[in-house]
Amino acid sequence: MPSQSALHPASGQFENGEHRFPVRVYFEDTDLSGVVYHANYLRYMERARSDMLRQLGIDQRAAQEAGEGVYAVTDIALRYRAPARLDDDLTVRSQLTQLGAARCVITQSVWREDTELTRGSVTVAFLDSTGRPRRQPADWIDRFSRLAPIPS
Amino acid sequence: MPSQSALHPASGQFENGEHRFPVRVYFEDTDLSGVVYHANYLRYMERARSDMLRQLGIDQRAAQEAGEGVYAVTDIALRYRAPARLDDDLTVRSQLTQLGAARCVITQSVWREDTELTRGSVTVAFLDSTGRPRRQPADWIDRFSRLAPIPS
Amino acid sequence: MPSQSALHPASGQFENGEHRFPVRVYFEDTDLSGVVYHANYLRYMERARSDMLRQLGIDQRAAQEAGEGVYAVTDIALRYRAPARLDDDLTVRSQLTQLGAARCVITQSVWREDTELTRGSVTVAFLDSTGRPRRQPADWIDRFSRLAPIPS
Amino acid sequence: MPSQSALHPASGQFENGEHRFPVRVYFEDTDLSGVVYHANYLRYMERARSDMLRQLGIDQRAAQEAGEGVYAVTDIALRYRAPARLDDDLTVRSQLTQLGAARCVITQSVWREDTELTRGSVTVAFLDSTGRPRRQPADWIDRFSRLAPIPS
Repeated sequence: MPSQSALHPASGQFENGEHRFPVRVYFEDTDLSGVVYHANYLRYMERARSDMLRQLGIDQRAAQEAGEGVYAVTDIALRYRAPARLDDDLTVRSQLTQLGAARCVITQSVWREDTELTRGSVTVAFLDSTGRPRRQPADWIDRFSRLAPIPS
Repeated sequence: MPSQSALHPASGQFENGEHRFPVRVYFEDTDLSGVVYHANYLRYMERARSDMLRQLGIDQRAAQEAGEGVYAVTDIALRYRAPARLDDDLTVRSQLTQLGAARCVITQSVWREDTELTRGSVTVAFLDSTGRPRRQPADWIDRFSRLAPIPS
Repeated sequence: MPSQSALHPASGQFENGEHRFPVRVYFEDTDLSGVVYHANYLRYMERARSDMLRQLGIDQRAAQEAGEGVYAVTDIALRYRAPARLDDDLTVRSQLTQLGAARCVITQSVWREDTELTRGSVTVAFLDSTGRPRRQPADWIDRFSRLAPIPS
Repeated sequence: MPSQSALHPASGQFENGEHRFPVRVYFEDTDLSGVVYHANYLRYMERARSDMLRQLGIDQRAAQEAGEGVYAVTDIALRYRAPARLDDDLTVRSQLTQLGAARCVITQSVWREDTELTRGSVTVAFLDSTGRPRRQPADWIDRFSRLAPIPS
């Protein structure tokens, strides 16, 4: 039997600048139509973005607790092509496609094996404690920039 | 003290073809940034669409239980302008802006008094039990058509 | 057509010291078994408790923003007897059954007409910003005490 | 860089008859008080029970789709001792403590390292498609019984 140290929450990784993050579908995610409720893909995509930051060494919680700022979603556009079902193993693919001073655009898609279920883009802005956009920490920009050539 | 019959869940109404639906913000809706979590606006908007159908005399649950079909969201596009907070009284405004054989586009926005917090559009398709698009019931199309002149 | 002023979110009222609060079931509340997901009754019950406070003139949000404190749930015990379904009109009945310096016990049940679906009790503690229990504001205790004779 | 095969969702394991399942806290789980919203521990605990069944070779989704039956929660009792926060790595420990013909009691607790945050028990009943309790599949009972001596 493996030791307890083998236990860890789902964690993603980068492949050629694209972040991949695994998600399993639970009862909580479905609705009576038998498939995943549409708003819950946004939860999956947010988990993936949070993991992407963690993999890059960016500590959102510390920034939030220190009053430096927090990301807020400003725009989403999503197309739903095929439904996910209970127990499905999904992968969320995320790619940073625009990087501004106070803003990132991330293109995200949700896959079950080779089938793309959902695709879209999410724009986030870094906000200070009064809710106004502010420059992302320079160190974060550096970390994003190392990811891949980004068409600014 | 008013009689129990005064108790009823939030219910919307039409004004000039636009449906208005009230929502109050609870703890469950917020996240640690102190405002409503972005995916939860989609829940508010879905409640509003369900109420819109109910006000039009369309019984989604009966159609689902009879195996006739169910609406699924196929596209969303949303812009978040300002956050909602705990205890806020919000209004979701919904307008049917396209009506196809198997598909509706609804333009929706979320307001706190005169401030628009979120605006976007949601496309839904009517699906049979295998997940394939099918014609919406003719009676439903009739009811939608009575709403307002719709640019097809 | 009624004026816009008729629009307001669900709101409860007291009857003989018992608070009653209406809830409608939406798609977001159900899971693939076709009924309301068990954890979501806790959301309904929290909405009812928040409305109960509001009806008593207690402003949770102001207390939270002023750093005075916030209620946290410390214990729940729930029995599920019968399921709620999409579009159901439910009533949450809430009664304050114990009132301590820093703590309240509320007995709550969820009904569809004359059928009790779920019943249980929820204990909440008033916590300061470090998470330690503190006395509830004296004015709040007064307001609770006016509700009904409470077996301390 | 590790191959894609390294990607998989969180998965638990048994240690001496106790199931352990890892959970990470995301924004969606928190509320404005800065910690995990109380109802969301029930979601974590349900994920752990579903994983426990999966580890035992029990396929809930197949049973549900074949119309054999589905588990429904009938009773919960939970004590909240300490809060979980954004980014926390939690472990849900689950132990089957009663096994009846149509019913299981599972004792569950949520830990952050050596700190127990929440503890309680959940009773589930196996229901047929009309919502009436029925015997759990004999093979499932066998699999549960191999877990550990259970006080019936």
